[in-house]
Amino acid sequence: MKSYLQMSKEELMECKADLEKAFEDAKGKGLKLDMSRGKPAAMQLDLVMPIMDILNSKSDLTSRDGMDCRNYGGPDGLPEAKELMAAMIDVKPEQVVVCGNSSLNIMYDTVSRSVTHGVCGSTPWCKLEEVKFLCPVPGYDRHFKVTENFGIKMINIPMTPQGPDMDLVEKYVNNDPAVKGIWCVPKYSNPQGYSYSDETVRRFARLRPAARDFRIFWDNAYGVHHLYDDDQDYLIEILEECKRAGSPDMVYKFSSTSKITFPGSGIAAIATSLNNLEEIKAQLTYQTIGHDKVNQLRHVRFFNGDINNLKEHMRKHAAIIRPKFEAVLEILDSELAPYGVGSWTRPKGGYFISFDAPEGCAKASVDRAKKAGVTMTGAGATYPYHKDPHDSNIRIAPTLPSLPDLKLAMLIFTVCVKLTAAERLLKEMD
Amino acid sequence: MKSYLQMSKEELMECKADLEKAFEDAKGKGLKLDMSRGKPAAMQLDLVMPIMDILNSKSDLTSRDGMDCRNYGGPDGLPEAKELMAAMIDVKPEQVVVCGNSSLNIMYDTVSRSVTHGVCGSTPWCKLEEVKFLCPVPGYDRHFKVTENFGIKMINIPMTPQGPDMDLVEKYVNNDPAVKGIWCVPKYSNPQGYSYSDETVRRFARLRPAARDFRIFWDNAYGVHHLYDDDQDYLIEILEECKRAGSPDMVYKFSSTSKITFPGSGIAAIATSLNNLEEIKAQLTYQTIGHDKVNQLRHVRFFNGDINNLKEHMRKHAAIIRPKFEAVLEILDSELAPYGVGSWTRPKGGYFISFDAPEGCAKASVDRAKKAGVTMTGAGATYPYHKDPHDSNIRIAPTLPSLPDLKLAMLIFTVCVKLTAAERLLKEMD
Repeated sequence: MKSYLQMSKEELMECKADLEKAFEDAKGKGLKLDMSRGKPAAMQLDLVMPIMDILNSKSDLTSRDGMDCRNYGGPDGLPEAKELMAAMIDVKPEQVVVCGNSSLNIMYDTVSRSVTHGVCGSTPWCKLEEVKFLCPVPGYDRHFKVTENFGIKMINIPMTPQGPDMDLVEKYVNNDPAVKGIWCVPKYSNPQGYSYSDETVRRFARLRPAARDFRIFWDNAYGVHHLYDDDQDYLIEILEECKRAGSPDMVYKFSSTSKITFPGSGIAAIATSLNNLEEIKAQLTYQTIGHDKVNQLRHVRFFNGDINNLKEHMRKHAAIIRPKFEAVLEILDSELAPYGVGSWTRPKGGYFISFDAPEGCAKASVDRAKKAGVTMTGAGATYPYHKDPHDSNIRIAPTLPSLPDLKLAMLIFTVCVKLTAAERLLKEMD
Repeated sequence: MKSYLQMSKEELMECKADLEKAFEDAKGKGLKLDMSRGKPAAMQLDLVMPIMDILNSKSDLTSRDGMDCRNYGGPDGLPEAKELMAAMIDVKPEQVVVCGNSSLNIMYDTVSRSVTHGVCGSTPWCKLEEVKFLCPVPGYDRHFKVTENFGIKMINIPMTPQGPDMDLVEKYVNNDPAVKGIWCVPKYSNPQGYSYSDETVRRFARLRPAARDFRIFWDNAYGVHHLYDDDQDYLIEILEECKRAGSPDMVYKFSSTSKITFPGSGIAAIATSLNNLEEIKAQLTYQTIGHDKVNQLRHVRFFNGDINNLKEHMRKHAAIIRPKFEAVLEILDSELAPYGVGSWTRPKGGYFISFDAPEGCAKASVDRAKKAGVTMTGAGATYPYHKDPHDSNIRIAPTLPSLPDLKLAMLIFTVCVKLTAAERLLKEMD
């Protein structure tokens, strides 16, 4: 087979005619397939259902340290919940605060607090002329939305398979005092599934920020979300690394059980230095009298307080989603690779595959797929301000649809990408 | 019996000697009784335990509108949860957003959002020279802490049995554009147990604020928390009243099930105008992907979606705490009234009794009680900045201790107040 770039105009027009027919066929089916968000499938949620039996009206709802979990109190979380979350994110329990159901909410609060109160005594960001955040791209849209919401200027940092371009990160962080933060998904990144290399993490820890209130927002959302038992990415623990490098306060680490138990009914945590924790705990006393401790207890008991049970549970998730990732890759490999259309990542974990359409083809491809009943994450969503400078990146979220639906959706998607690419090439030939 | 004020120096000294002996006796007992916070007692939490059986691994966790409550989504709450909370706080379901476990957290977020983003297009409060809040006193310490945390200047407004001094409220709100809000606990107020009169609510609704971003923070924490079946306070619904008065956007109404089911594991809600809701919902999309919908469902099903079941459930709470309120009043009536020492409220609902010691005696009385093992809410806590200008008010929280413990604690408390009052009078006689 020939790549589109090698085809003559006639050959391309023939392809285009076939693709148009395939597209019309797909439209005629009246499908409604959603691949827009990284949501677990019903089958994954089914395997969590036993958590609903863990506690009942006969249960003793007392925590290890004797707190009646049914009552007010314990704003920083139960000791046993701290222990479980600490084991999950490779830190010590005393470095952890366990909060409510959403790590996004903790990140939002962390930015919000910095805006109104500053960071460990620094000038509140709302009093500054300009505040900037570095945003590895493509990245997670909800991160970018948080900083956009506070009027923080976002600067794109290209991602590589080893993590963000660290030359650029160092240039900005070490020289510009307006740069106050960077968004990171260090393991099985959203959307590429890349994991930061040892060198990348070490360079992060060795940053010498021009702003003393610069913080790394380390969203370890997919720390235990491997697809394969025998081929997993490994990540150096950043808090320890920063401590060793003499910057113990430089990182906030976030995590949750949203894609482990029930999204929305899980527990979330922040881990950081004792200095930072002191500030966070002080703020928490104004915000709440305590998070949902019964749910913390439910989670601890579901895993019997043992990280190995949690890891075993994640193997069951993997068994459900691994075939979906593989199906997406197979279809991209068979339907697009021979024509040299687009490129994509091959993650070993996480929730996404990053797809790069030929330049200028992302938006049109996604719009076209939508017309055939296939909803993808909006083109541009993986960039700050929804602006992909190359109009190329599309995030593929394989988990939610059933395997047959997913295959159908991906076939339609590849048709849409090829059709858009062919049209574009033909236009360039005119 | 004679009131202390009528006693001779000798009589007072005799009293004092007896009280000192009683105090030393109490100290010798090595008690540890906590009356500092409005926490439900274990017995109240026990009656909530059946909620733990409402959902199990066989339950259908689908909401009325077909949402899988186990997954992401629904940031503004389940329709059936909105309906239940709306019935509880006398509004329409479409005026409600159901959030996480804490109404304090919603209030904090509401102030925080106003500080960083303004209110419906107004200047963000962080950009203003000065922002002021009116604080009916005595009032709820955690309200005052929220505004203090954001550097908002707090102005004391005296409470009356009909609500805040409305002449003063009108003077401030209608003339000073820096006054952006007022904290209200309109029913069974914290700590007096007063409920705002019809006239008070109508005058609130008819405020003509100098600041267009002025909002009433209406914390209806004790809306269904009656002590008596046949003698309940009634409150005019403020949102409807404001709408009628032409100021539909002037109120945020807050509520939760914290003292209905489990504190910390309940559900909380905000109700307001559609204009305000639009702003709140937009903000929520940055903060979270959704609150705990499984817990919302648990609550709806526990009450079978029927407000009458919730009211019936509150009667069971009342049966437990009513004797405690009555015991406190009996002891105050028998131990203090005959001596003319102090004054107190007689609430028909809520969680507190407000006690006024003779001027200058609150802090010393509370400190003394602490030495005898009885922890009261800190003197001053009911005032902004912890400053009670008369050093008089003490919040009594009768719910947490057992009835025998409560009686013992109150007896010791009255000894401490009398002793402090006698010492003070004797000092004045010198």
